[in-house]
Amino acid sequence: MAKLILVRHGQSQWNLENRFTGWWDVDLTEKGEAEAAAAGELLKERGVLPTVAFTSFQTRAIRTLHIALHKADRLWIPETKDWRLNERHYGGLTGLDKQETRDRHGDEQVHIWRRSFDVPPPDIEEGSGYDLSNDSRYAGIPVPKAESLKLTIERVLPYFTSSILPMLSAGETVIVSAHGNSLRALVKHLSNISDDDITGLEIPTGQPIVYEFDDAMKPGERYYLKDG
Amino acid sequence: MAKLILVRHGQSQWNLENRFTGWWDVDLTEKGEAEAAAAGELLKERGVLPTVAFTSFQTRAIRTLHIALHKADRLWIPETKDWRLNERHYGGLTGLDKQETRDRHGDEQVHIWRRSFDVPPPDIEEGSGYDLSNDSRYAGIPVPKAESLKLTIERVLPYFTSSILPMLSAGETVIVSAHGNSLRALVKHLSNISDDDITGLEIPTGQPIVYEFDDAMKPGERYYLKDG
Repeated sequence: MAKLILVRHGQSQWNLENRFTGWWDVDLTEKGEAEAAAAGELLKERGVLPTVAFTSFQTRAIRTLHIALHKADRLWIPETKDWRLNERHYGGLTGLDKQETRDRHGDEQVHIWRRSFDVPPPDIEEGSGYDLSNDSRYAGIPVPKAESLKLTIERVLPYFTSSILPMLSAGETVIVSAHGNSLRALVKHLSNISDDDITGLEIPTGQPIVYEFDDAMKPGERYYLKDG
Repeated sequence: MAKLILVRHGQSQWNLENRFTGWWDVDLTEKGEAEAAAAGELLKERGVLPTVAFTSFQTRAIRTLHIALHKADRLWIPETKDWRLNERHYGGLTGLDKQETRDRHGDEQVHIWRRSFDVPPPDIEEGSGYDLSNDSRYAGIPVPKAESLKLTIERVLPYFTSSILPMLSAGETVIVSAHGNSLRALVKHLSNISDDDITGLEIPTGQPIVYEFDDAMKPGERYYLKDG
């Protein structure tokens, strides 16, 4: 039976500093590394062993995957990285302290940017130190100027359908190590969650979420591996 | 200009214990991790930044790659793992202490097994605890019973030609993180070294070796990046 394991990266330095991160490439903290290791140990303990891996272009998700696979003795499985699994692009908010942003723009506006389905944050300014459009990592890739959750979903889901779903159809146990909003996109689709409800759904860090698929490739209820 | 970077994995637990390892999956020691980190820092310092990565199915080479790429801020590049880059299979010697083996079989015999070009060590015994022929990692793969350097070359070189060389032809900077004998296979080919001479050529651990290719895809002299 095909299984899909979703893991949100462990704590990053900017999670800790409470700054908007998005596509900026921030590394894991020691706590984040420990969360990734615990995820891998849980996979091994439960015998839910990935056979194929996907992750984003971002260090915090890639390292979460590597640390977890190392603990699960599965570093050798094939691994594909794709920008479509990146975090939502936070545009002009990238790098800002969340409290400072609330002080400047008001709680309500910040809540809308963070939790509305289809309102993107302000575009990133050209020449901003956080502009990645000339980064060699993203050569040939349409780097967004800012993304709502809706825009994030519009790049994540086609990738899921074209690249991840065929692996599940082939019976693989697929692990996806990614980000709060790219994983929300997948959970919304697989658990059929409304636009209004998905923005409030929290994906905990380092906690493997599992979907099992039936022969018709219909996903069952999602569950946390720790409870499963 | 296309570049090929070869890195032999850092010290493993069985390097430290002086045991024959081959295909057995032994992890890096702390010293091995530090060697990998130093290799990555050197890549970054010299601005020799890989754009594509290849490694074996073995944890010590995969982790060497990941640690080095992390230090060089290049974890996001595409990475392909293939069993053809594995270490030479040490057959029935796998797991044995090298000194014990010399005591039992004599210095001369052990020297022949270690350093002859085409004499393989004894076959691994069926049912040996080190037999990997039923390991899920190697499903569908013709796991050897023992390999000489000649047999190792006969699987490494076709893989180089079919999978790595096209990347070099496309102008990529390719990093290969692998093992003493799979890297000997590449160095023998690229530096045109004789059967007799290649068995005595030591590839140092964690020390990036570079080949630069001209427009006709002819490799130049190999050099250590630290000296280059």
